[in-house]
Amino acid sequence: MNAEKDAGHSRKPRADGLASRHAILDAACKLATTHGLEGLSIGELAEHIGMSKSGLYAHFKSKEELQLATIEAAIAIFNADVLEPAQKSRPGLARVNALVEAFLGHLLRRVFPAGCFFATVAAQLAARPGRPRDKIVGVQQSWAGEFAKALEQAREAGEIAASVDRAQLVFEIMAMLFLVNFEWIVTQEPGVLDKARAGVKRLLDEASAGRSKARRERPLQTH
Amino acid sequence: MNAEKDAGHSRKPRADGLASRHAILDAACKLATTHGLEGLSIGELAEHIGMSKSGLYAHFKSKEELQLATIEAAIAIFNADVLEPAQKSRPGLARVNALVEAFLGHLLRRVFPAGCFFATVAAQLAARPGRPRDKIVGVQQSWAGEFAKALEQAREAGEIAASVDRAQLVFEIMAMLFLVNFEWIVTQEPGVLDKARAGVKRLLDEASAGRSKARRERPLQTH
Repeated sequence: MNAEKDAGHSRKPRADGLASRHAILDAACKLATTHGLEGLSIGELAEHIGMSKSGLYAHFKSKEELQLATIEAAIAIFNADVLEPAQKSRPGLARVNALVEAFLGHLLRRVFPAGCFFATVAAQLAARPGRPRDKIVGVQQSWAGEFAKALEQAREAGEIAASVDRAQLVFEIMAMLFLVNFEWIVTQEPGVLDKARAGVKRLLDEASAGRSKARRERPLQTH
Repeated sequence: MNAEKDAGHSRKPRADGLASRHAILDAACKLATTHGLEGLSIGELAEHIGMSKSGLYAHFKSKEELQLATIEAAIAIFNADVLEPAQKSRPGLARVNALVEAFLGHLLRRVFPAGCFFATVAAQLAARPGRPRDKIVGVQQSWAGEFAKALEQAREAGEIAASVDRAQLVFEIMAMLFLVNFEWIVTQEPGVLDKARAGVKRLLDEASAGRSKARRERPLQTH
């Protein structure tokens, strides 16, 4: 969190400068889930946090730099709140469920005021090529990668059959989490989260049923 | 593009004024899929279509009025391009498939320059209460209603079992279409649309398998 070393001037950052950058990015992350990352102009953000525009410019040279730093800050929050707790689960299907539950908990706890930062920002930036979009696409791919890894572990552990199309399964799990995030934002009704839970459970039950079938086909295999 | 004829006074709208309104809204719909509906300020839109701000103000008294009229225009396009063709299909599961294919075709034909108008705008407005959001939520509910109706027909025709949770099925179908829209916008790769196709096929196959099971349980029923 001391990237402002490079911000506009060559002075060594002081402790209050660091805190200030942290406070700016925290506000920016939250504002982005309601106003969008594109709505995050330096002027509006400065007004929102009661800072001067020139004060903000000292930290971020351009709207794009601010957007990229905001995405970085949101990644750190998401990692600490969703990915790290989920990594404590058993690899395989338990990990898939832990990722799903950590994500739904993240929504329910309103870590960002309006649902998942990345879903909102990805939907908004999808049609706007550039560095912020590339970064968000990278986050989505890495989130998909977590599910792919857990499903690969599940296959290795014999929890699901090798014949299960894991890339398709990742798509379907992510689809449910993606839609439920927006239903949650609109309704603020915790019950809607059960739709994603039920959907993922059915997907995993089906993938496991595939395993039972595969096991029946290979009755002599004992490991 | 000569709407400023009516700027700032109360003359009755003439045919060229109406045509101009149509042209404005057509541009506004398209711009909204890339820049978002929130990004649709009267100033930016005026600049985009080469009109004066006062000319635009003659048509729309406020940004909100412009947003609501833009949503109405997008509804008319979506209805003509997706809903009406799909209504020609046989009621029931064939209708579900026709709705899905009409939607995927709508993306592929790039009717809007960046995917589904409603998915983008819904994602953007979810956290911003107001009349535009309410209107978009209404469109989403009516889109869900089309699937619910087709699945109800499928149940009546015995294509799926009465025990199938149709509300959950609607959620899962919509989830796949919602995510695939954004993957399509980012990748512009027609192959990604197959993920939604494969997902929906699996869902419907499973719902039909439920029916076979239900039929086996009621072997004497012949209708």
